[in-house]
Order: sequence, then C-alpha cells, then structure tokens
Amino acid sequence: MVRFALFGAGRIGQVHAASIDAHPGAELLWVCDPMTAPAVALAEKYGATATSAVDQVLADSRVDAVIVGSSTPTHVDLLTRSVVAGKAVLCEKPIDLDLARVDACWEQIKDTEHTVMVGFNRRFDPSFKDIRDRVRAGELGRLEQLIIISRDPEPPPAGYLAGSGGLFRDMTIHDFDMARYFLGDVVEVQATGSNLVADYVADAGDIDGAMVTLRGIDGTLAQITNSRRCSFGYDQRIEAFGAGGMLTAQNLLPTSVRYFGAERTESAAPYYNFFLERYTPAYRAELDHFITAIEQGIAPSPGFADGRAALVLADAANESLRTGATVRVDG
Amino acid sequence: MVRFALFGAGRIGQVHAASIDAHPGAELLWVCDPMTAPAVALAEKYGATATSAVDQVLADSRVDAVIVGSSTPTHVDLLTRSVVAGKAVLCEKPIDLDLARVDACWEQIKDTEHTVMVGFNRRFDPSFKDIRDRVRAGELGRLEQLIIISRDPEPPPAGYLAGSGGLFRDMTIHDFDMARYFLGDVVEVQATGSNLVADYVADAGDIDGAMVTLRGIDGTLAQITNSRRCSFGYDQRIEAFGAGGMLTAQNLLPTSVRYFGAERTESAAPYYNFFLERYTPAYRAELDHFITAIEQGIAPSPGFADGRAALVLADAANESLRTGATVRVDG
Amino acid sequence: MVRFALFGAGRIGQVHAASIDAHPGAELLWVCDPMTAPAVALAEKYGATATSAVDQVLADSRVDAVIVGSSTPTHVDLLTRSVVAGKAVLCEKPIDLDLARVDACWEQIKDTEHTVMVGFNRRFDPSFKDIRDRVRAGELGRLEQLIIISRDPEPPPAGYLAGSGGLFRDMTIHDFDMARYFLGDVVEVQATGSNLVADYVADAGDIDGAMVTLRGIDGTLAQITNSRRCSFGYDQRIEAFGAGGMLTAQNLLPTSVRYFGAERTESAAPYYNFFLERYTPAYRAELDHFITAIEQGIAPSPGFADGRAALVLADAANESLRTGATVRVDG
Amino acid sequence: MVRFALFGAGRIGQVHAASIDAHPGAELLWVCDPMTAPAVALAEKYGATATSAVDQVLADSRVDAVIVGSSTPTHVDLLTRSVVAGKAVLCEKPIDLDLARVDACWEQIKDTEHTVMVGFNRRFDPSFKDIRDRVRAGELGRLEQLIIISRDPEPPPAGYLAGSGGLFRDMTIHDFDMARYFLGDVVEVQATGSNLVADYVADAGDIDGAMVTLRGIDGTLAQITNSRRCSFGYDQRIEAFGAGGMLTAQNLLPTSVRYFGAERTESAAPYYNFFLERYTPAYRAELDHFITAIEQGIAPSPGFADGRAALVLADAANESLRTGATVRVDG
Repeated sequence: MVRFALFGAGRIGQVHAASIDAHPGAELLWVCDPMTAPAVALAEKYGATATSAVDQVLADSRVDAVIVGSSTPTHVDLLTRSVVAGKAVLCEKPIDLDLARVDACWEQIKDTEHTVMVGFNRRFDPSFKDIRDRVRAGELGRLEQLIIISRDPEPPPAGYLAGSGGLFRDMTIHDFDMARYFLGDVVEVQATGSNLVADYVADAGDIDGAMVTLRGIDGTLAQITNSRRCSFGYDQRIEAFGAGGMLTAQNLLPTSVRYFGAERTESAAPYYNFFLERYTPAYRAELDHFITAIEQGIAPSPGFADGRAALVLADAANESLRTGATVRVDG
Repeated sequence: MVRFALFGAGRIGQVHAASIDAHPGAELLWVCDPMTAPAVALAEKYGATATSAVDQVLADSRVDAVIVGSSTPTHVDLLTRSVVAGKAVLCEKPIDLDLARVDACWEQIKDTEHTVMVGFNRRFDPSFKDIRDRVRAGELGRLEQLIIISRDPEPPPAGYLAGSGGLFRDMTIHDFDMARYFLGDVVEVQATGSNLVADYVADAGDIDGAMVTLRGIDGTLAQITNSRRCSFGYDQRIEAFGAGGMLTAQNLLPTSVRYFGAERTESAAPYYNFFLERYTPAYRAELDHFITAIEQGIAPSPGFADGRAALVLADAANESLRTGATVRVDG
Repeated sequence: MVRFALFGAGRIGQVHAASIDAHPGAELLWVCDPMTAPAVALAEKYGATATSAVDQVLADSRVDAVIVGSSTPTHVDLLTRSVVAGKAVLCEKPIDLDLARVDACWEQIKDTEHTVMVGFNRRFDPSFKDIRDRVRAGELGRLEQLIIISRDPEPPPAGYLAGSGGLFRDMTIHDFDMARYFLGDVVEVQATGSNLVADYVADAGDIDGAMVTLRGIDGTLAQITNSRRCSFGYDQRIEAFGAGGMLTAQNLLPTSVRYFGAERTESAAPYYNFFLERYTPAYRAELDHFITAIEQGIAPSPGFADGRAALVLADAANESLRTGATVRVDG
Repeated sequence: MVRFALFGAGRIGQVHAASIDAHPGAELLWVCDPMTAPAVALAEKYGATATSAVDQVLADSRVDAVIVGSSTPTHVDLLTRSVVAGKAVLCEKPIDLDLARVDACWEQIKDTEHTVMVGFNRRFDPSFKDIRDRVRAGELGRLEQLIIISRDPEPPPAGYLAGSGGLFRDMTIHDFDMARYFLGDVVEVQATGSNLVADYVADAGDIDGAMVTLRGIDGTLAQITNSRRCSFGYDQRIEAFGAGGMLTAQNLLPTSVRYFGAERTESAAPYYNFFLERYTPAYRAELDHFITAIEQGIAPSPGFADGRAALVLADAANESLRTGATVRVDG
C-alpha cells in the first residue's frame, strides 16, 4: 500500500484523488491546498485529511509519495522539499516555465536519492502506448515520420493564459513529450503559429494555433498540429509511419452507435469534449506506473529529465516562431 | 469481337447498351423494341440499328449474342427463339414468373446446343465476388452463416407491382441467387413478410418488407432482410461467417470524405440511391464473363438452372408466408 | 446507501460484487454460497461476511437487497424467500428453465409488495440503450426491422450444457429480451438451428447455431443470429431500421489503433473475447438502475414479467425448431 | 467535339489518350513522340495517327487542342508553339524546372490569346474537390489548418531522379498546388527533408521524405508530409480544419470488403498502389474541365499562373531546406 499526499485540490488534483481512490494499492492521507474549502471538500470525499500546511504533510512519516498538482509556480518548491523529505514525487507538467529554475531545482535534488516522475499522462493512453510498444517491437521497421494532431475543445480563459507560459509551454509541451516518446532526443525545431481563434489570445501576446516540425537525433521527422479550439471535441490523434507500415490512433467515441439517414450515413456521436473523459484511463495507468516504480524501487518514466527536455523544445519553438529560423537543440 | 443484339430499350436495356459500348470486345448491332422512339434513341447513341422486328434480328448472321432485357412476359419466347437461332443469350431475371413456363422453356432448349446466362448481376459485384472467392479458397474455414441485407431506396410504382410477381419473385430473387452463390442448393425456406411501407403495396396483395431464413444442403444457414424502402439509399450488404472468421461487404460511398462537427463526427455522404450507380461495375463484369464464355466455348454462370432455382425458392417463400410452415425444397 | 447480500460466489457473482464495490451508494454485507472457499474469498476481497446459510442472510434486517447469482435451479426458491423476507431482488436470467415453475413463483409473490428485477444486463449497454432511447424519441420514425447478431467466443463445456436448458433458453434468451426491448410484445416465432460447431453439443441434443425471426405485436420484424463460437471474439451487434433511417451498434475495440501494411490496411485488434470485458459498463449501469429503483420506490425494469416473457419466446422457438411451423405467442 | 493531338506516348500520355477515348466530346487525331514505336502503338489503339513531326501536328487545322505529356524539358517549347499555332493547351506539371524559363515562356504567350491549363489533376479528385467545394460554401466556417499527406508507393528509379528537379519540384509540387487550391496565395515556406528510404536518392543529392509548413496570405496554415515510399500503397489524404468543423478525405479501397478473424478485425485490402488506379477519375474530370473551358471560351483552372506559383513554392522549399530559414514568398 502506497500512502499519498496531494498538493492542489483543483481540477487536476481531483483527477489524481479519484485515481488514488480507485487504485487497490493506494491510499490518500492528505489533501494540501492554501484554499481551505476545496481542500476540505476533496479530503472528505475520499476520507483524507485537509490542510494548508506543507510542513505538516511532509513531516508525516506515513506518507510515501506526493502528487504535485498545484499551480505551476509552486511546483519546483514542492518538488524539492518533497524529495528532501524522502517522498516519491509525481509532479504535474510543466516542472516550471523557466528553464533556469528547472535546472536550479535539479542542482538541489540531483545528489539526493529520489523517485521523481513528471505527469505526461498521454504516454499512458492505451492507444498511444500500444503504438509505441509496437513500434519498439519493430512492427513498422524503422520509424520514419510521426504526425501528432492535438486540439483542445476551447481556449482557456484569459486569466489562465497570463500565467500559462504561452501555447508551446502550456499545451504543445504534451506533444513535445509525445514526440520524444517516439523519437528520443530531438535536435531541430521549426515552429509556426497563428491567431485565428480568439482576440484575447493575441492581446495576451500568445498564439492559438501552431504547426511545428521536429527532427529526431536519428533523422526521424515529426509534425505537430495544435489548435486551442476544436468544434467537434478533444482532437487527439497520432500516426506513426515506418518503412514497413503505419499505426494510427483515432479519436475515442463514447458508444459504437452509428446513424444512417437521407442526409448522411455512418455518422457517429461527437468526441469526448473534456480531457478528463478522454484521458481517465491514461491518468489511472500513469498512477499505476508510479506506484509500481515506488514498490519496485525503479526510476519512473517519464522522469525529471523528460520534463526538462520538453521545456527545452518549447523554448526552441518560441525562438523559431520569433526568428523564423530552424533552431538546433543540443539535448 | 462479339456482336450483340439487344431486346428491350428500357432502363435495363440502356445499362446493357452502355456496357457493350464500353467493352473493347463487344459491338452493338441492333436495338429491338416494339416501342420505336426509345429503340431509335438508344440505337443512335451507340451506332446501332433500331427495329421492332425480332425475326430480322435473329436472321442476321452477324449477330453472335443477344441480351434479353425486355419485359418479363417476353423473356421465355425471346430466349427460346434466340437459342433456336443459334445465338448466345444473356437473359435478365426472372426467366419467367411461372415455374411451369420456365420448365416448358427448358424442354424446348435442352437438346439444342446453347449458351444461356441469367442476369444475376450481383454475383459480379467486386465486393461480393471477392468474398465468395475467399470463402471458396477456405479463408473462413467452413462457412456457417450468411446474412444478406437488401433494401431498395423506394418502392416501385403501383403499375409496376401488378406484373412484378410479388416481392419474392421480383426483388428477393436476387438474394435467393446470392444465397445459392454461397450455399449451393437450398433445402428449406422460412419466410415472413410485412406491410409497413406503402398502402398500395398491401392493396395489390403484396408485401413490402420480408425476413427469410434458408438452410443449405450442407446445413449452412442464411438470413435475408428486405425492404422496399430505405431512407439512406440502396442498402446492399452481406456477411459471410465461418468457423475461422468473417468477411463483410459494406455499402459503397461516392467519395471518401468524412465530416466532423459539434453535432456529429466521422459522417459520410448518403449511399448510392440507384441500382445503376451501385452496380455499374457488376453489370460490366457480368457482360465480360458472358463474352468470355462465348469466346472460350464454356457454359456461363449463373445459367438457366440457376435462374430456375431462384424462382423455386421464391415460390417456396410465398408458400411459407401463406402457411407459416417451413417449406422443403427438393432442388 | 443500499446494503446487499449476494447469493452465488461464481463468475457472475464476482461481477456483481465488483459492481457493488464500485458503486458509491452500495455496500456488500454478505456473500452466501454452499461452497465455502469461493464465498470466503469473495467476501474477504470486498469486506463482506461469508456464509452458506440463506436464513441468516435473509434474517439480517440491515440487508436491503439481494442479488441472486447462484445456479439456475436455485433462483425461484431464493427469489421467493427473499421477497417474503422483504428484500429487493435482482435475479439473474433465466428465472427458471421451466415456465410452470416461473408461474408458480409468481403466484407466491404477486400479492406481496416486492421490487424484483431480472438481470438482462444488455438493456444497459450504453450503445444498445442509446439506440433504444433514440428509437423511442422518434429519430427513425416508425421502427420496421431489427437485426440482432449475437455470437459467443466459445461454446460452453459439456457439463454446463446439460443443465443449460438448451441454446434458446440459455443464450438466445438475452436476444429475445433485446427484441422485446425494441418491439414490445412478440406474437410470432420462427426458428431454425444448426450443429456446425461441436459434436458434443449435438450429442447433448442441443444446437450450436440458430436463426430466429420474430414478429412484434405491431408488425415490426426482428431477426436473431446466434452462434456458440466466434473466432474474432464476442460478436454483439444490433441494427434498428426505421422509416426514416437506421441506427447500428458495432462491436467494441480495446483501443483506437489501426494498422496499415502491405498485406492489409485499417486493421483493428480483435474484439473483446469475454462477456465481462464487453459488458462491464452494462452490469454497472444495471446495478445503478436497481439501486435507483429501490431508493425511489419504483418498479425496476426489466421486471419479473420480462423474465417470463423471454422464456415464453425460448419455448416457442424450441417448438418452432421441432415442428418447422411458425409459433403464435399469446403474450 | 474537341479534336486532340497528344505530345508524348509514355505513361502519362497513355492516361490522357484513354481519357480522350472515354470522353464522348473528344477525339484523338495525333500521337506525337520522337520514339516511333510507342507513338504508333498508342495511336493504333485509339484510331489516331502517329508522328514524330511537331510541325505537322500544329499545322493540322482540325486540331483544336493539344496535351503536352512529353518529358519536362520539352514542355515550354511545345506549350509556346502550340499557343502560337492557336491551339488550346493542357500541359503536364511542371511547366519547367527552371522558373526563369517559365517566365520567359509567359513573356512569349502573354499577349497571345490562349487557353492554357496545367495538369494538376488532384484538384479534380472527387473527394478533394468535394472538400474544397464545401469549404468554399462555408461548411467549416473560416478555414484554419490544412493537412496534406502524400506518399508514393515506391521511389522512382535513379535514372528518373537525375532529371526530376528534386522531390519538391517533382512530387511535392502537387501538394503545393493542393495547398494553393485551399489557401490561395502562400506567403511563407518552412521545409525539412530526410534521407531514410534509398541511398541512391541521397547520392543524387535529393531527399526522399519531407515535411513542409506553409502560411497562406490570410494566415491559414498548412502542413505537407511526403515520402517516396509507402508500404501500404499510394497514401493520399487531406484534412481541412475550420472554426466550425473538419472535412477529411481518406485513402480509397478497391472493394468494401472487411475481414474479421482471431488476429485482427475490420481489416481492409491494401490501397491502390499506382497513381493511375488512384487518380483515373481525376484525370477524366480534368479533361472534361479542359474541354468545357474550350467549348465555353473560358479560362481553365488551374492555369499557367498556378503552374508557376507551385514552382515558386518548390524553389522556396529548397531554399528553406538549405538555409533552415523560413522563406518569404512574394507571390
């Protein structure tokens, strides 16, 4: 049994609390959040204790592991203190918006024995993982091209955008990690952006659509398409193309029902419109991997270095967007 | 080069004329129809000669083959005279509505050397034929169950119904032949009908929907579903289920385009709404088979006996519909 | 909170125990089975108490509801005693193999206030339910034809067959209920069977494949296709065809991954091979409906009369199979 | 009736000859090729006259139109002389590999009345055209992103590569035109290439895979993925994504047959492996458009300027590939 404390009682914190509750080998002891009301509500729902005191949580010797699901600026501090307190850490993405702070964090923890995992949940999506396992097993021969299509149903509110770090560090970072999941290290980034969705995004100095091309260290190419708005739901697809074939993952439907009529045929329902519906199995599998890593004393994956590497690609994409040049990444 | 005369300048005659024109090894010499205007129009379109005189056509020694696409009551007479005149014959289905007349026809031609094919065009549909070829090749192991779904877009006009012989002899006859294409001889028929589409069908003493179960001589079962109306087009599908797998043929779409929106996703266009659009490749392949049979001196398939056998099943279905009993068929 | 006792610690009992555990409004108090070991194992897994004493369970005033998941011959006795003891009852299908015993059971309970539900879980499959809801809402206009394809991956062992009551009462009974779910009362049954799968089924006097045609009280037709073996998994599909369109439910896939290669394209993984994987959401929704009915004091559906009606259709199918005649059912 | 002369009796010439033969309003008079044997063979097949004398063809006043399907270096000369001779011209892509020669050609013909069409046949693919028509009709709201996936089954032989002008001018040029078909003028090009398919391509200084990002004049983004090899056939897909939905065109299958077995389900046959099978309907519709333009005295589309613009994009992609920079295009 792995005993958890959860930092952050917001949307993603609730996802993790539900996953812990559903996992037979996990127990939630603490919900820690400076906002008392949501902390208490979440703690009560799952029989845990609410607190706003980080020290109290980290001092509890029963706590084996923490999940850092609080706001991004708090990640580095909580991650560092948790490692120092001897807890295993599952930290939500991004580790931080500032690469220098990420590197400083690493300096703090690198010599301490630690178990740190970064929450790139999509690696645990059953379809994406199946493709990656089959690519690794050689089913496609050499992997040559990867296409990632990733569109959110709706742009985030203006208030969220301000602290988001911009599209590449907030949204595309998942896709950069997905590219690394297949390609390994990425050495070149070309990025283009657009403002076609919402004026307040442009007003905030951000983009709301993007197309990015990556080159992996072995020459494999990848393309990412992003949009902050998608009328037909959460659009999450990948194609892995190799010398011997292709594997694709399509969007998920809530039922298998199809409609046939005079105006249209073979018509399905809209896709899931919310990341929780779409990725619930991924969050559960992510937690299960983290618990397994703790119990077996192995390093979880994706780890701290993966969190850092995705941020490096986001920064490179911002530079490419600004300069128009292909940006080399040294890894 | 096989030289053709065509009996019947109506809808199905036009299909055959176009197929002859498109075939590099075929030439249309005559269009013969008691109605002068359509005969002339069709003949002119393809560089043939129009006539209403059957004798003139059959006396033309250049004519190698005839297609009997005239009204059903004329089939037996034209087929018989054409055989006597030494022509190869492709006769549209049904040979006749009356089994006694079909048998009498056979008595007339059985001792004459002849090449007679019956126009069950669906055997030549590329998808259905592919399934049948693969079943024969053993891809499914032993065939156990066949499901045929066959629905027309719209019921025929009342005037047509009167001479149609009823749903089983007019429409299901194609499906009876399709069942025989997969099962060989059929030994039992159970039939049920309904009147849910149009009052004038019931008024004419006919049904406008049906479900039929057949047992093949080796125990394989088949189900047929028919409707005289289908809002989403011409619904033509089969499933062949065997010990080792299943092969299905789905409906055909004019393009590969799919629509994704807030109300629906993966939505395709309506299916073909007319048998000519749906079965043009089948009609062309049927003609090609007929020409090949003539040129190679082999018996075309489906032949006269297949035309008779499908009619026997239609009669058995009518008896089952009337009595509620399973009807044995002796082949 | 609804407190449950579970009769039967076998395969289906384990399904229900897991559903109770996952339901926030349900608690499992007792697992009752004459076999001590499985009862103890299941009870321990979910924090319940094991017993072999039915009286002890029914005397426990904390118990609100029982699930009868024991062997078929025990259903009537347990259902009756539970109703007498004032418990709500969810009884697995079939109520009994013998219609006379079912009717005798009804005589016993009909004057007692009771909440009895029969476990036709497929009514709660999200896809089938979606189609039924949309049909009821008029999306297809008048329903005209229903096609049910239901094939099990593997035939049951010979030992199971002996007490199964035969294919129609054991397997098709689900499809009879599905037909009634869409058509309401059924008035005619035509049935055909085959022995193509396993010799020991024929040796037991049973069939291992079937095709059945039903007519609903308002003239709607339905076809059922069954096989005791299906190489590609659990084949569970329906098509509802109406004046204005069609709705279909296809088989379910574990992921959305498709493979494209030189030998084949658009290829998916095999379907679920086990009814628990396939119908887990249905079992959970079934339990949720039962709990809601208890809490709101309403009659659950499908109820006792639905369990009886499906058995009547199974008996009619057996008679049709024996006589070859269409069998009228008086409801 | 439009009377044609055909320059070039090679592979693409044969396609056009077949299209002319199949078109009721077209007639083939001449096949002109310096290689006598193929010219004679092709001319005989369609009842035309073979020649190697361009002057003879252009002097024939019966000739209304020419198709330039000869080798690329001859295009400009034949196009120019045909225009001067008063013939309508359908010129295969590219007009020339050298933009300066294209511009010089334009200087020659711009003041002459002419009807010049460039053979970007994919604009006439029924699926791609359907999407474009629906986008233009506003079905998706504002178009925001276009994804083009275009992969050939096999790389061309080394001998062909030498004179091909490289991947961008030879293969991607179709996709540049497709992008312009949807986006109008393109103002920015980012290109990346790879050598993963065949060593002899790299030896020839060319690439065999590419990913390109384009920005349209109104900010719409497009991505192109190319590969010279595709194990599962000719991979030709597009996705048009807009504010209100998405339209996709998938690959085409020769039949609708699907296989279901223990190892895989819903499996289709391989895709068409050859551009002629895949694009026959497009070539026919292209010719039909050309004939209509001639008969109605309107400018065919795509015209000379479209042929030039696609070449400009190919040159820009080569520059971006070399420098890593985003290349501005002035249109």
